[in-house]
Amino acid sequence: MKTIRVSVLRAVPAFAQGLVRDLRVRWALEEAGESYSEHVIGPEEQKSEPYRRLQPFGQVPVYEEGDLALFESGAIVHHIAQRSEALMPADAAGRARATAWMFAAMNSIEPAIQNLTTIDLVYAQEDWAKARRPGALEFAQRRLQDLATWLDGKRYLEDRFTAADLLMTTVLRMPRHTNLVAQIPVLENYRLRCEARPAFQRALAAQMAVFARHAA
Amino acid sequence: MKTIRVSVLRAVPAFAQGLVRDLRVRWALEEAGESYSEHVIGPEEQKSEPYRRLQPFGQVPVYEEGDLALFESGAIVHHIAQRSEALMPADAAGRARATAWMFAAMNSIEPAIQNLTTIDLVYAQEDWAKARRPGALEFAQRRLQDLATWLDGKRYLEDRFTAADLLMTTVLRMPRHTNLVAQIPVLENYRLRCEARPAFQRALAAQMAVFARHAA
Repeated sequence: MKTIRVSVLRAVPAFAQGLVRDLRVRWALEEAGESYSEHVIGPEEQKSEPYRRLQPFGQVPVYEEGDLALFESGAIVHHIAQRSEALMPADAAGRARATAWMFAAMNSIEPAIQNLTTIDLVYAQEDWAKARRPGALEFAQRRLQDLATWLDGKRYLEDRFTAADLLMTTVLRMPRHTNLVAQIPVLENYRLRCEARPAFQRALAAQMAVFARHAA
Repeated sequence: MKTIRVSVLRAVPAFAQGLVRDLRVRWALEEAGESYSEHVIGPEEQKSEPYRRLQPFGQVPVYEEGDLALFESGAIVHHIAQRSEALMPADAAGRARATAWMFAAMNSIEPAIQNLTTIDLVYAQEDWAKARRPGALEFAQRRLQDLATWLDGKRYLEDRFTAADLLMTTVLRMPRHTNLVAQIPVLENYRLRCEARPAFQRALAAQMAVFARHAA
């Protein structure tokens, strides 16, 4: 068994705590029953050349497993899911469907949500942000409504929990400063159902513990 | 051999021709040497309930192969790549690295580029867009510069052409109304190198032919 190491941030603003993307990888490892160690980093290391060779955009997480280094949380979760039936069904069609929803979470939902959260959490005081917000909100709502239409009457995106539900849940957590998700019961219940998983709870506690330890 | 069918749009504005996301799937199928038929659709079908059951966000492409239906261009390309060494190396580590770059193209580069192209191509006359553009441009440039740093001295993202280069090239095509990519020679040469592939040329011609046929 190879040792797994995941890079995580030492400190982030309160609005980002519990949302940083190593949460996805921690959660996947918890679901798969795999242990890992944390590589806690700060802004200096994020900018450093050796780190950029592992993560070209200077972000977290980096995933190291023996000689293999991976970046991009969606891809790392996919990698872990490949070897764990807790995260992916065994049949080829089921795996392809789960992968479709993984890309959908990262490419069709997250950008719409992140556009809005960036306006609210980074640029709220700017005149352009005030003028742009209604349009950004409407687009995010449209994507979430399409997702709710799909999820209506289902417990998960497909017929069982997969790595796609894991990624989608972390995206639905992002606009927690708004009622965007809460006002759509299908989505809110789905998010709560996935977050109730013990593996999620352990992953979240582990991320928060790093911030608490370094704030002290 | 199962029959493959890909949904494509009948008509799009000139600025989107050659950029619509079925191009990715056509290109992947051409690289893999697989034939496919087109399912040409218009706005009515995009909005229809049966289509939404295949593509929850009403977009193209939908990929149908026997009983399996997939959406999300990145995921469809990944699915095709799984069975073709033209698009993915055979070893597990190489496949994981290619997948990491596929997610990076879709989640770390495309949203930054699309944020800018939406401002330029949809909202250029709005006051908020004029005020926001410099910041959106700067963020897109930073991501592209990070990508160029990675690609410097390399022919491809990893040691050979993979499905990740295919996706990344289609993203680098998106800001073609600007000099964003052209002003970074490492990226411009990479884009041209990938676009020179006969499989890309056939895919692009096939997409453009649909628009020409239906405009006539």
